[in-house]
Amino acid sequence: MGDSRIPFTIQSISKPFVYGMALEECGRVEVLKKVGLEPTGNPFNSISLEAGTGRPLNPMINAGAIASTSLVAGDTPELQLKCILNTLSLFAGSQLSIDASIYRSESETGHRNRAIGYMLRNFGILTKDPIPTVETYFQQCSVTVTCRQLGLMAATLANRGTNPVTGKRAIRGEYVENVLSIMGSCGMYDAAGEWMYSVGMPAKSGVAGGIIAVLPGHLGIGVFSPPLNTWGNSVRGIKVCDALSRHCDLHLFNRSSSVASALRLKADGTEFSSNRSRPADQRHLLRDFGSRIHVYQLQGELSFSTAESVVRDIIEHFDELAFLLLDFRRVLSLSESACWLLHELLIKADKKGKSVVFSHTHHLSLLRRYMTARLGTQRERLFRTADDNDLALEWCENALLARLTVERSTPEPTSTPVYELCQDLDADEYGIFSASLQRRRFKSGEIILKSGDPANEMFFLAQGEVSVLIQTETGSRKRLAAMGPGMTFGEMAVIDGAPRSATVVADTDVECDILTTQELELLGRRYPEIRIKLLKSLTLSLSRRLRAANRELGLLR
Amino acid sequence: MGDSRIPFTIQSISKPFVYGMALEECGRVEVLKKVGLEPTGNPFNSISLEAGTGRPLNPMINAGAIASTSLVAGDTPELQLKCILNTLSLFAGSQLSIDASIYRSESETGHRNRAIGYMLRNFGILTKDPIPTVETYFQQCSVTVTCRQLGLMAATLANRGTNPVTGKRAIRGEYVENVLSIMGSCGMYDAAGEWMYSVGMPAKSGVAGGIIAVLPGHLGIGVFSPPLNTWGNSVRGIKVCDALSRHCDLHLFNRSSSVASALRLKADGTEFSSNRSRPADQRHLLRDFGSRIHVYQLQGELSFSTAESVVRDIIEHFDELAFLLLDFRRVLSLSESACWLLHELLIKADKKGKSVVFSHTHHLSLLRRYMTARLGTQRERLFRTADDNDLALEWCENALLARLTVERSTPEPTSTPVYELCQDLDADEYGIFSASLQRRRFKSGEIILKSGDPANEMFFLAQGEVSVLIQTETGSRKRLAAMGPGMTFGEMAVIDGAPRSATVVADTDVECDILTTQELELLGRRYPEIRIKLLKSLTLSLSRRLRAANRELGLLR
Repeated sequence: MGDSRIPFTIQSISKPFVYGMALEECGRVEVLKKVGLEPTGNPFNSISLEAGTGRPLNPMINAGAIASTSLVAGDTPELQLKCILNTLSLFAGSQLSIDASIYRSESETGHRNRAIGYMLRNFGILTKDPIPTVETYFQQCSVTVTCRQLGLMAATLANRGTNPVTGKRAIRGEYVENVLSIMGSCGMYDAAGEWMYSVGMPAKSGVAGGIIAVLPGHLGIGVFSPPLNTWGNSVRGIKVCDALSRHCDLHLFNRSSSVASALRLKADGTEFSSNRSRPADQRHLLRDFGSRIHVYQLQGELSFSTAESVVRDIIEHFDELAFLLLDFRRVLSLSESACWLLHELLIKADKKGKSVVFSHTHHLSLLRRYMTARLGTQRERLFRTADDNDLALEWCENALLARLTVERSTPEPTSTPVYELCQDLDADEYGIFSASLQRRRFKSGEIILKSGDPANEMFFLAQGEVSVLIQTETGSRKRLAAMGPGMTFGEMAVIDGAPRSATVVADTDVECDILTTQELELLGRRYPEIRIKLLKSLTLSLSRRLRAANRELGLLR
Repeated sequence: MGDSRIPFTIQSISKPFVYGMALEECGRVEVLKKVGLEPTGNPFNSISLEAGTGRPLNPMINAGAIASTSLVAGDTPELQLKCILNTLSLFAGSQLSIDASIYRSESETGHRNRAIGYMLRNFGILTKDPIPTVETYFQQCSVTVTCRQLGLMAATLANRGTNPVTGKRAIRGEYVENVLSIMGSCGMYDAAGEWMYSVGMPAKSGVAGGIIAVLPGHLGIGVFSPPLNTWGNSVRGIKVCDALSRHCDLHLFNRSSSVASALRLKADGTEFSSNRSRPADQRHLLRDFGSRIHVYQLQGELSFSTAESVVRDIIEHFDELAFLLLDFRRVLSLSESACWLLHELLIKADKKGKSVVFSHTHHLSLLRRYMTARLGTQRERLFRTADDNDLALEWCENALLARLTVERSTPEPTSTPVYELCQDLDADEYGIFSASLQRRRFKSGEIILKSGDPANEMFFLAQGEVSVLIQTETGSRKRLAAMGPGMTFGEMAVIDGAPRSATVVADTDVECDILTTQELELLGRRYPEIRIKLLKSLTLSLSRRLRAANRELGLLR
């Protein structure tokens, strides 16, 4: 609000940005040899060089800023200036330029800075003629910005170096913490302690009356008001930042606990189930033993502390689980230390004979790279991933059922299944019913029925596996259900007469027994008891699935 | 790891905690008159009093620490010491005590601190005989702690003043930011700039070799290793903190954006629906116009920036919505600035004729108090709350339907409804069917059928409203469905013969037409076509509800 689009010169607010450029060009080690890190009790234009080395105490005083400017990429001062203008423009999200008259006036009166330049040359901090570098420094300070642009420059630092409006990277993320650290300890000249106490954000002021302040991960602030106090900071600017900080709870150290929020939901395999339709014996096994599958839905940013709280919770429940599903769909980012903790979890789980599946990790390339680098040839076996939760959960269910079948030596299912929908028919009725069926075969990959098609057949799956798919809004296919021998599909469209609502594809070679609408009508007219039994079975199956869906909704809603 | 349970003296690490006690006793304004905030380039035992006022520059040097000790609650030095021991014990989560021999030795050699005490007395910073206060200060420094206890003390600061293990409050949350600010700018003596640059956490060291470091909202660190560098900081302690910070990404300024994570889910009233069963005409209206209801599920901590991003998103979509449901079930905490933004949203929504419902706000007393204070007599009308999302969504649906009915002047529903399940019966069939029914009346509040009871009747609701309820694991009742005239309940138990799975209660005076299992069997035997039509309708209704549940699951899973 106010005159947020009036241009003024950036002055010392350019210092942290140019310091960041020096870090990008030369790296931390080389820059530290030329510019220190410690706050000084002296004014901004003091020479303040370290005894012995001649190193300026920090990059926010003029001596340290001139040294930073000399380290920017570019073989000539002209190229360095171009590079500075380009980078400041990336931070601001629009093209910035220099106010030539301010630059001339600064250059005409800047003898103290020339003296500093020669002192730096004397100690070998500057390695060439200092005058061109000091001129570049004058020009860098004469770049004009608006209050709005300052706000965006601060927001770019808050956003780890990427301008949140243009999406363009202005500085590599790893150097942002260094720039903010220096702003935190030396940004407000002598008032650094008081500023940190009352406002609590890294900040930098300029002698033209601008101030930037940054709440990392949250927001940036730009303020402009020319009248200065004795330390050279904008009087109203300080008051506004102070009020904003208090009013909007922006103080860096006024954070409540954010650890608990990484765990979105915890459930087990009795509460969640995959879209695979299963015969009654498998359903009963999963009902009785599904609690050995634990599902953890994670969310937000996984940092060391948030990941640690989740991993600790998992390890505390290790005895109860055999399979672990980690859902990363709503994880926005994850740090290397979170990867490390997850890696430790995999090693520990493997030792204890637990299996872990990760779902929705395609957007987390750091995690994938980390696991490849650390697990080597073990990666396939230990870092198991699935595209979505449905597939991940099905994998867990299948593995659990396989283990239970071995443990309990359940007999192999018979080769000709009794269709679930026919379970109430007696032998005579089943004989009548099966005479109405006709057998049809499909190759693996073949489309058995297609969404939108008219419906006049229902399918009893005798052999093989099928998937029921729908097209999502984004164009990708989503699996609604997966079925094996004994299951029925295509029945709803036959009953309500509407076109097919989904597509069914053969996942393996498939054999189906098909009942046409016509045959069903005939059967119903001649043997209403058979039709009633079929409808009752269908009602029970729908009702069971509705209850399961409602149970899951109760958890998720 | 290592010797984490070996006791040593706390020394200067006591300073920030005692400073916090001074703030709690006297408030920020009074404490600031006696102790400043600015870092000093001088060693920890320098006198460093501000020219003119004699005020110690900050509470981390001995002069400022002694001044802080004098401000602790208690009429006598003995009571003050007791208070200090109690508070430090709350921070540590176990009873601490003083090492008498260390205290004696400090007292015997502490002449410089006595000199400081008299200087403070000279400037009126201490108002009584300084010697007893200096003795209390020696004792405070001689409190023994283990490395583990130090870690917990730091974790208590990270947790806004509440010990995360014992759950007990050691210091009021509002002063934690002040304590951490001082640790950030002055905690590591002269190495503050370098420490902030490399480790990036507020910290305090003690001359016995301990260090604490705090990552606010995340964790606390305690380290112990006696050998010191020239600044009086533990050499290995610094190295460990540095390695931990890099390895676990703990640097305060190395935060990626956390703004997006407050919005858990956005949906509209065509994707989500309440558990109220509705007649076909209402279902069709909600299908066509439900997108005017917007649902925002929020999560985690609502701070200024996270709340701002949500509120902005809502306002950008104002034109599309008439009703707004804000779900706070997964909101862990919310700041006053978030309350302020939500208040602004309510005012804006009211001006534009939008209705807002808040659900699951019972754990957010700050929000309720804020709205009461700011909205006054308007509170009832503008700050509409519902216990859960189901009720909130039903309110939105009902209000939308009422508005649409007015807009489109839909005729009132007929007083004797055609039961949905009977919609395929022709007039003759319906005549036969209705002859099997018997009318029964229930008073408002009466239980119509009860979970666990044997089932031999199904209910056609002729007049009034009912709720289908289940008992949750926590003992509270949860509404599975709500129904009005024309709906059917109790049918599943009749079909599968199982006991009732839920309880149905009359929400108003109710009239039902009842069909017994016996009558249903008779009817089915004599008129199989009627039974088939009833089963087909039931199948369609179940299938419709299953599709809706799956659509919602697709969003939530």
